[in-house]
Amino acid sequence: MSFQNPVFIPGPTNIPDSIRKACDMPTLDHRSPAFARLFRPAVEGVRRVLKMAEGEVVLIPSTGTGGWESAISNTLSPGDTVLAARFGMFSHRWIDLCQRHGLNVRVIDSPWGEGAPLAAIEAALRADAEGTIKAVLATHNETATGVKSDIAGIRRALDAAGHPAMLFVDGVSSIASMPFDFADWGVDIAVAGSQKGFMLPAGLAIIGISPKAIAATKTARLPRTFFDFGDMLTSYAGGGYPYTPAVGLIAGLAHAIDLLEAEGLDNVHARHTRLAEGVRRAVLAWGMTPFAASPDLYSDTVTAVRVPPGCNGTELVQLAAAKYGVAFGVGLGEVAGKVFRIGHLGMLTEAMVLSGLAVAEMCMADLGWPVKLGSGVAAAQEFYRGSVPALALAAE
Amino acid sequence: MSFQNPVFIPGPTNIPDSIRKACDMPTLDHRSPAFARLFRPAVEGVRRVLKMAEGEVVLIPSTGTGGWESAISNTLSPGDTVLAARFGMFSHRWIDLCQRHGLNVRVIDSPWGEGAPLAAIEAALRADAEGTIKAVLATHNETATGVKSDIAGIRRALDAAGHPAMLFVDGVSSIASMPFDFADWGVDIAVAGSQKGFMLPAGLAIIGISPKAIAATKTARLPRTFFDFGDMLTSYAGGGYPYTPAVGLIAGLAHAIDLLEAEGLDNVHARHTRLAEGVRRAVLAWGMTPFAASPDLYSDTVTAVRVPPGCNGTELVQLAAAKYGVAFGVGLGEVAGKVFRIGHLGMLTEAMVLSGLAVAEMCMADLGWPVKLGSGVAAAQEFYRGSVPALALAAE
Amino acid sequence: MSFQNPVFIPGPTNIPDSIRKACDMPTLDHRSPAFARLFRPAVEGVRRVLKMAEGEVVLIPSTGTGGWESAISNTLSPGDTVLAARFGMFSHRWIDLCQRHGLNVRVIDSPWGEGAPLAAIEAALRADAEGTIKAVLATHNETATGVKSDIAGIRRALDAAGHPAMLFVDGVSSIASMPFDFADWGVDIAVAGSQKGFMLPAGLAIIGISPKAIAATKTARLPRTFFDFGDMLTSYAGGGYPYTPAVGLIAGLAHAIDLLEAEGLDNVHARHTRLAEGVRRAVLAWGMTPFAASPDLYSDTVTAVRVPPGCNGTELVQLAAAKYGVAFGVGLGEVAGKVFRIGHLGMLTEAMVLSGLAVAEMCMADLGWPVKLGSGVAAAQEFYRGSVPALALAAE
Amino acid sequence: MSFQNPVFIPGPTNIPDSIRKACDMPTLDHRSPAFARLFRPAVEGVRRVLKMAEGEVVLIPSTGTGGWESAISNTLSPGDTVLAARFGMFSHRWIDLCQRHGLNVRVIDSPWGEGAPLAAIEAALRADAEGTIKAVLATHNETATGVKSDIAGIRRALDAAGHPAMLFVDGVSSIASMPFDFADWGVDIAVAGSQKGFMLPAGLAIIGISPKAIAATKTARLPRTFFDFGDMLTSYAGGGYPYTPAVGLIAGLAHAIDLLEAEGLDNVHARHTRLAEGVRRAVLAWGMTPFAASPDLYSDTVTAVRVPPGCNGTELVQLAAAKYGVAFGVGLGEVAGKVFRIGHLGMLTEAMVLSGLAVAEMCMADLGWPVKLGSGVAAAQEFYRGSVPALALAAE
Repeated sequence: MSFQNPVFIPGPTNIPDSIRKACDMPTLDHRSPAFARLFRPAVEGVRRVLKMAEGEVVLIPSTGTGGWESAISNTLSPGDTVLAARFGMFSHRWIDLCQRHGLNVRVIDSPWGEGAPLAAIEAALRADAEGTIKAVLATHNETATGVKSDIAGIRRALDAAGHPAMLFVDGVSSIASMPFDFADWGVDIAVAGSQKGFMLPAGLAIIGISPKAIAATKTARLPRTFFDFGDMLTSYAGGGYPYTPAVGLIAGLAHAIDLLEAEGLDNVHARHTRLAEGVRRAVLAWGMTPFAASPDLYSDTVTAVRVPPGCNGTELVQLAAAKYGVAFGVGLGEVAGKVFRIGHLGMLTEAMVLSGLAVAEMCMADLGWPVKLGSGVAAAQEFYRGSVPALALAAE
Repeated sequence: MSFQNPVFIPGPTNIPDSIRKACDMPTLDHRSPAFARLFRPAVEGVRRVLKMAEGEVVLIPSTGTGGWESAISNTLSPGDTVLAARFGMFSHRWIDLCQRHGLNVRVIDSPWGEGAPLAAIEAALRADAEGTIKAVLATHNETATGVKSDIAGIRRALDAAGHPAMLFVDGVSSIASMPFDFADWGVDIAVAGSQKGFMLPAGLAIIGISPKAIAATKTARLPRTFFDFGDMLTSYAGGGYPYTPAVGLIAGLAHAIDLLEAEGLDNVHARHTRLAEGVRRAVLAWGMTPFAASPDLYSDTVTAVRVPPGCNGTELVQLAAAKYGVAFGVGLGEVAGKVFRIGHLGMLTEAMVLSGLAVAEMCMADLGWPVKLGSGVAAAQEFYRGSVPALALAAE
Repeated sequence: MSFQNPVFIPGPTNIPDSIRKACDMPTLDHRSPAFARLFRPAVEGVRRVLKMAEGEVVLIPSTGTGGWESAISNTLSPGDTVLAARFGMFSHRWIDLCQRHGLNVRVIDSPWGEGAPLAAIEAALRADAEGTIKAVLATHNETATGVKSDIAGIRRALDAAGHPAMLFVDGVSSIASMPFDFADWGVDIAVAGSQKGFMLPAGLAIIGISPKAIAATKTARLPRTFFDFGDMLTSYAGGGYPYTPAVGLIAGLAHAIDLLEAEGLDNVHARHTRLAEGVRRAVLAWGMTPFAASPDLYSDTVTAVRVPPGCNGTELVQLAAAKYGVAFGVGLGEVAGKVFRIGHLGMLTEAMVLSGLAVAEMCMADLGWPVKLGSGVAAAQEFYRGSVPALALAAE
Repeated sequence: MSFQNPVFIPGPTNIPDSIRKACDMPTLDHRSPAFARLFRPAVEGVRRVLKMAEGEVVLIPSTGTGGWESAISNTLSPGDTVLAARFGMFSHRWIDLCQRHGLNVRVIDSPWGEGAPLAAIEAALRADAEGTIKAVLATHNETATGVKSDIAGIRRALDAAGHPAMLFVDGVSSIASMPFDFADWGVDIAVAGSQKGFMLPAGLAIIGISPKAIAATKTARLPRTFFDFGDMLTSYAGGGYPYTPAVGLIAGLAHAIDLLEAEGLDNVHARHTRLAEGVRRAVLAWGMTPFAASPDLYSDTVTAVRVPPGCNGTELVQLAAAKYGVAFGVGLGEVAGKVFRIGHLGMLTEAMVLSGLAVAEMCMADLGWPVKLGSGVAAAQEFYRGSVPALALAAE
């Protein structure tokens, strides 16, 4: 594995040089006013990226998994019921976490490759006249299958059913790369991680919380201390932090948001769509298809490529790493071997994506897959040529 | 606050340049074999620093507070009883955490400034013939008061009482700076943090676990997922990690241990004792005393300085930051104002300590405290002159 | 221009992360023994890379141009005669420098695209029975045209003519990337720069000097102080430096040589040949040709691509930078517009080269050049697939 | 030598973290417009720091010695006469350089510890009615003795004598730390280096050139190519550089000037005066004196401390490095052993200076010098207490 090559895993992403520098800072006294001066812009920036109109942001030194745990342990009590669809490894894991913490999860199983089943969710909510369901969990972007779900649609389902459940969204692999609208979608808790669209190293869970979710913390009886929202918000109000914060990641987050906003959030989203579309053109040129069941489900941050019959995606990933020093993602769980995954999120360029496609093609040829060298690259080149805005790339 | 000056807070510590570089790394695929190659030396190194003969090490992207939470949530069940002495802010906080998680804490309150009360602990254990107490919690180094406790003594108390309780030790501000002997002291869980003796940024809880504590995880019913030791160890066995690891901090940890071992752990401990003794000589020269009740309790990583009557330690800390750009620690909780704290842990030199002492003296003079400029510096100089080994300082 | 993309200029090269870290160091007292400990390995390493059996190495805080100047000003006197062939921009510039410093240059002009004309050189030497020619200047790798010259052949010409002239070689864009044999070729002064095969930032001229050249310094009357070899060697002997050295670049040089030797110099050369050959296959697949007149002249560090009639290489370079954020080299001097240049030296991978080729193709298509997208990429892929050693790439 | 400690050599200085980051950049194509965007602010900033009203700035990848060489080789011809005073190692070296390059130097020898002898200079100029003297060389701050000279006074001498000679000033260890007024003082060439007041690593000569000096380049016949001002200015005009520039140092220079201007140049000068005065108070408290002959000559960037009879300053410097890991400057040339030097320039704080003073005292005690521990520290503390502006130190 050479650090000279970009990575094409669906996170952690390639870290821009200036973000690495922002994170790499000398020790700063987190009990001094200097900390508050550094912290506030990060929190305010997250609020803008999530498009929050009200509510609070907390930053916890952990990961997306910690963010999931914080969402439920702060707002729910043992035995509470939540509704969740399962259609990939990461939706599966959040459900598993809920069960370990003593929640009753009503699981709607959908085929992997599908997104959140809106009709079934609405039906389940309508059937819950007594309001047993306290929260609906939704995986905005299922990283395992490269599928995005319609969070606005889930909000509509809740509204159509007139159901008061909270809406918790796992946006770990979507937020800051794909459009997200906390306010408009009526999200109650959004969970993001530092190492995806925010382009930072792993180590920070980034969480948006609605007033309704904050209210729920008052009565929630699941135990928590490290993840306690109340401690966080009380400390933040005084310019502090309940324990030792990950100062470098917080400084990096503020800088990452500066970069995102300098490019323009809409432009960032459009760039992800453009880069993803080039990858998809390559996949089709290879005679393969994205694993996502239909184009409206295509994720703009990761493409799970369904490999030809008789081929094994995991072999490609291993060969790419061992022979060419390039990292792709393997298929996880029930799609192990059936797909390989190309991450295309974070501060990526056309040149970088093309090198990933070129390496994937060499691996396919090496493994005897029926693919013509250069074919996917050419399809992506053709698309990028026509779509890349001149001078789009600032000297980051 | 100038980043040119060292910090004298009791953690996070000043970060050596080479550790900053080790942490600041490009993205590495944590699902690739390269991750295991990087992870294993870190874990093995921790084992040596803790002096573990058996058991396991886990590294969790969180902090000391997360380490505390992981210790109890992995090994205990709701309603379980633990025994803990409270004699400072950090022993207090661990007790509070236990209570929030539904444990029954038998608290032995001791005056702040004292260490763990061995006799009272032994008495409590002897009185618990039925073995209700599942674990004894011990704060090895109470960062709030600059007091170290006798963990070997607690082990002797357990043995003398013939009590089977586990021994959980908060070594956050002692481990890697002061002697620690997991095996010899019969520790069941030791909690350390990256940002103290390991000289890293905050963001990693470093935890040693005995076979007995691992056995306890099988039946422990407190909920946990992010902190689950079982998931950690299962993943480690396969060269993986249960979620996205903090790769840079892990790489930095391996390098930090290389630095510690290049200096020699015994030499590291001796250096901390030497630097601390210089600070204490300065304190006495100022006509003040360490807050710790007796010399055997003096911490080698932090000195809480009892300020003269009518003086306020917090004012000194604020003035040092605002006027001289130097960070000291305020008194916390019931010693707020009554002390200020000088951290002297991590990769520190005599020159650095002397600059801290000199700045503290200027603040004292500015605030009208009855202290002669240069007096504490001179006392520390005299001690260092006679005790520093020539050529002790490698070109780190 | 995005810093995320590799550069494809023929130097400065892409800088490996660990080299950037080695260069980025805190201030070290260059009058202390610590400096000598850092300096000596750099000098000794250069000796090995150049394959010197005897003589000295000096490191001067300047560039290749400074290296050229040092070579002549230390060894020659006003009015001295040197022999040089001119067949590209960089051989031209060295000649110009000599003329500015009052030397009499016997210039052998050869067509650009050719290498050093061995027969003409030998003839000139044979004609100089009186030994007027004090030195032969040779450009090992003409960066402007992508042409390598046969330095061993020039040595044979000198020997055949029985001529005592010194042999000065500009190896700026060859040394550390292509085979170089100071001892075997009888080189008297070899000039390299930090920013090419050594993969460092610009700022250090790296110079090997034979005993014969050192002897020449005793009588040489061209003025010099900053570049004075005598001052350098006298200072080095005492562990010092005649003025303030570029300590970070020297530390980086020592590390770069560690990297080169860890890979193996022969492997480094083979990798450059392999990467270059892939580029040349792509060029042929585009229906174009390298500018170098014949395959034996092909440089392994840079390919000047002769563009199709009616096309302008400079437009490609400008478009690549403006639209795709990728840097190639323009044609210089008399080949301006007629070529564009692809640098392929330093710590490069197949994935990186392929991204450069893919971007070049997009630009060609954008400019209406008669090239099929993906064609060059495919040719390079096919070659790399068959030639890259598995696991060749260490986790630099 | 520990990198944790500040250095107290009179340059290179301690490098602020943000400057290290600005210098440590990925490769940027120096032939692209991105280079010009980065270069221009650096050049414009230097113009402001030097207080130039007209003329040009060149940045050459070399050092102060290279700057000296460039000054004379661009403006003078072999045999030309220059006037220079010699009163320390660095004024000596510039004179030596001139002689090596074939100039006729009229040397006015003054005792070391004195500054430029204005009356003697004026007399020499008046005596040169025929205008033989082409340039007056002046060392603004003699780093070897800690003496500053009155450059405005030399201008007055030139004006009083009505002499047309150019005025060349070595401001290597003064510029950016002490007031400098290119326009007001009628300077023709000012030479600075990156590694002193600009707080960068060594490797960049920073040169201001008056229109008169530029005019002189047209007829100057000393050979130069690497240092040629004409090539520089021609290239700059087109957004280029005559060879490969030291891009990272140029980026760092622009950032350093941002830091200086954020603090305010007047404040920077005042800070240097304040820090220097504290050092001088300490020296007096030790019963010693600055080597500079009178207070008006005291340098604000370096203090050469005259050591007591029977003591050897070099021993102190060696002991400080070996035992305490702290770097001071030895006495050079005729003051070897008679002084040791404390550098106090660049981004320094009171806390840093005090640590240096404290370490010097320990060394004095170790060596048996008649000095009371803490005495110099106390004198400096007393002075700093009363003079440091609150909140002066930004979070650099």
